[in-house]
Amino acid sequence: MTSTFLASRNPILFGPGVSARTGAELRALGCKKVLVVFDKGVKAAGIVDRILNSIREAGIETVCYDGVLPDPPDYTIEEAAAIGREANVDGVVAVGGGSSLDTGKGAKVLLTNPPPISRYYLAHEDIRPDTGEMKPIIVIPTTAGTGSEATPGGVITDTKNNCKQNVPCATDLGIVDPELTVGLPAAVTVTTAADALCHAIEAFTSAEHNAISDVLAEKAIELIGANLTRAAENGADAEAREGLQLAATLAGLSIMGPFCNVPHEIGLTLGMIFHMPHGTACAMTLPEALHFLAPVIPDRIARVVRLLGATPPEDAPAEMIGAAARDRIAALYRDIGFPKLSDFVKSKEEVLAAVPAIMEAMPFHFSPRPVTAADVSDILAAAYDR
Amino acid sequence: MTSTFLASRNPILFGPGVSARTGAELRALGCKKVLVVFDKGVKAAGIVDRILNSIREAGIETVCYDGVLPDPPDYTIEEAAAIGREANVDGVVAVGGGSSLDTGKGAKVLLTNPPPISRYYLAHEDIRPDTGEMKPIIVIPTTAGTGSEATPGGVITDTKNNCKQNVPCATDLGIVDPELTVGLPAAVTVTTAADALCHAIEAFTSAEHNAISDVLAEKAIELIGANLTRAAENGADAEAREGLQLAATLAGLSIMGPFCNVPHEIGLTLGMIFHMPHGTACAMTLPEALHFLAPVIPDRIARVVRLLGATPPEDAPAEMIGAAARDRIAALYRDIGFPKLSDFVKSKEEVLAAVPAIMEAMPFHFSPRPVTAADVSDILAAAYDR
Repeated sequence: MTSTFLASRNPILFGPGVSARTGAELRALGCKKVLVVFDKGVKAAGIVDRILNSIREAGIETVCYDGVLPDPPDYTIEEAAAIGREANVDGVVAVGGGSSLDTGKGAKVLLTNPPPISRYYLAHEDIRPDTGEMKPIIVIPTTAGTGSEATPGGVITDTKNNCKQNVPCATDLGIVDPELTVGLPAAVTVTTAADALCHAIEAFTSAEHNAISDVLAEKAIELIGANLTRAAENGADAEAREGLQLAATLAGLSIMGPFCNVPHEIGLTLGMIFHMPHGTACAMTLPEALHFLAPVIPDRIARVVRLLGATPPEDAPAEMIGAAARDRIAALYRDIGFPKLSDFVKSKEEVLAAVPAIMEAMPFHFSPRPVTAADVSDILAAAYDR
Repeated sequence: MTSTFLASRNPILFGPGVSARTGAELRALGCKKVLVVFDKGVKAAGIVDRILNSIREAGIETVCYDGVLPDPPDYTIEEAAAIGREANVDGVVAVGGGSSLDTGKGAKVLLTNPPPISRYYLAHEDIRPDTGEMKPIIVIPTTAGTGSEATPGGVITDTKNNCKQNVPCATDLGIVDPELTVGLPAAVTVTTAADALCHAIEAFTSAEHNAISDVLAEKAIELIGANLTRAAENGADAEAREGLQLAATLAGLSIMGPFCNVPHEIGLTLGMIFHMPHGTACAMTLPEALHFLAPVIPDRIARVVRLLGATPPEDAPAEMIGAAARDRIAALYRDIGFPKLSDFVKSKEEVLAAVPAIMEAMPFHFSPRPVTAADVSDILAAAYDR
């Protein structure tokens, strides 16, 4: 059944150089003193200073929180918000990868709602943060991956239950400037772009894909196919960076309704167990997942293959289409030096031992093909052997 | 300068047959008794009864307002809202073309905010309707044109000042079912689709076009080029109807930021003076406007020509590209029987006499080329002679 296209509520300013407008945009939002949230790596890369300069040139005071951690733990959200409350800020700016953006979103919630952040997890269906008094947030991604600038919530690690939680929080502006990704190391370029590729392909192959989302997903897949190898080989290729950054935003917009399916559902648990970065874990089984899905949605899988620049023969049987999809993405992964499952897990047996935890955590509600424990084992085994 | 992509806040359920889910969707929104807004033509076409059946089968009561007029006058909004208030409804459903959707949006505002509707015109920058207590609205377009399901306001005729005004009002759901347009007369198909074509082309050629909007606009242009002649020739062509309906929604999404430029800016005043339907008036000068814009944005105009299935020579000079765009759209208009300016105005002199009013009403802020009175005269004269 087709899903409702859940239009993002987040306005987005996209283009090379637009991050120089950060200060002016904050002023337009009425901010006089803002909490700026980032991690030490983005600071060391010099990106935070560019943003801080723009903010200060607009006559706006800044207070910094530089303690963002990957897969942001609940307590870091509370730390960031405490600094902002103490300084009586009237806005938030989050600069960095998905973890920084999600930390900023959580901090925005806690600036005007009592902690702890766990009160507002979407899983607790009865409690929602009061949005009436919320201060504005601008998010500025420095990777082309999560699409967090397009999505209406922050993903936070619940350290009590060792799982991911979602806190609802729209953003007031996303400033998406591909120039900020030019210095990104190839390894980060590759795994974050693979995350975006998953968002787009999983939305397009979801049991609840929809026609509007399809338009965004198809364009994102095409852009990643055309630009990822180029950006991995030459990080200074501005055109390739712009293509990937646009793809990441479009992919973020495309998942609003269809949501993700097999690769993300396996990857979320896999990442928690084996301490793999989000993008790496979620993209790890993409080739094998598409091979698995081809028998039920051969036309959509064939379309993915074509968008990635390969050509399955007309009227090819589903098995051949699935193999073509698997092989096309596996070849892309080889070209870009995408990590292997064996880099994180020392034996196939150990990976397969994770299957019960994956099945327990995930309902595979958005997969167009029912997924059994045996299917997950097959997918993981094939991914391990690839 | 690139604009911010103002993501629509309106969720959209798109697909053949989805209007049968109207009752269930209203129930999910918590409605028990709704005001249903439409005009007599849509009722006579049997479409309203299909929607009413779906609503009533879900156990929801209905109260009807069938007085929608084209370019909805302010007083009709107040009439519709009075009926809804009197019956103490807890939601609105608007079924029809852009006029019905805009009437429904205005009625939603007045259900929980004191009349008259003129208090809430966007032009009065200081007064905004209180959104806190607003009742939900579902909008169900029956033409593929305005894209009102994607836009955050209702366009209303200010009968005191004889001009158009905008009232801010997001929708809670758009149900966009191409099957509802299958019985549409060819003349309505043609002029509403031309309106959507203008939205997409004007967003794409705006001085403030943006990369996300471009993706939506390009797809909309391509879909209209591929499907409009088919739908005009055979209204029962379900695939063509679906293509046009998706294009209209995408085009509505694409104008959120770049907004429209020359054809709409001329058309809005032209339509008021010569009593032309909105789509007809706005699309009337599209061929000549693109010819006018080609010298400053030849690459974008060439891209429009290609999306419409024609091929200007590589490295063609701007004048040749502009002529190709003009001729491609003029040929499309001939194929589909689009009206002529002389159908509405009896002499070229009379059209040209409207130029001062057009210049006074419109700043042409979004045109990538400055627009003088002489330019508007040239565009109108060429359109009259076409």
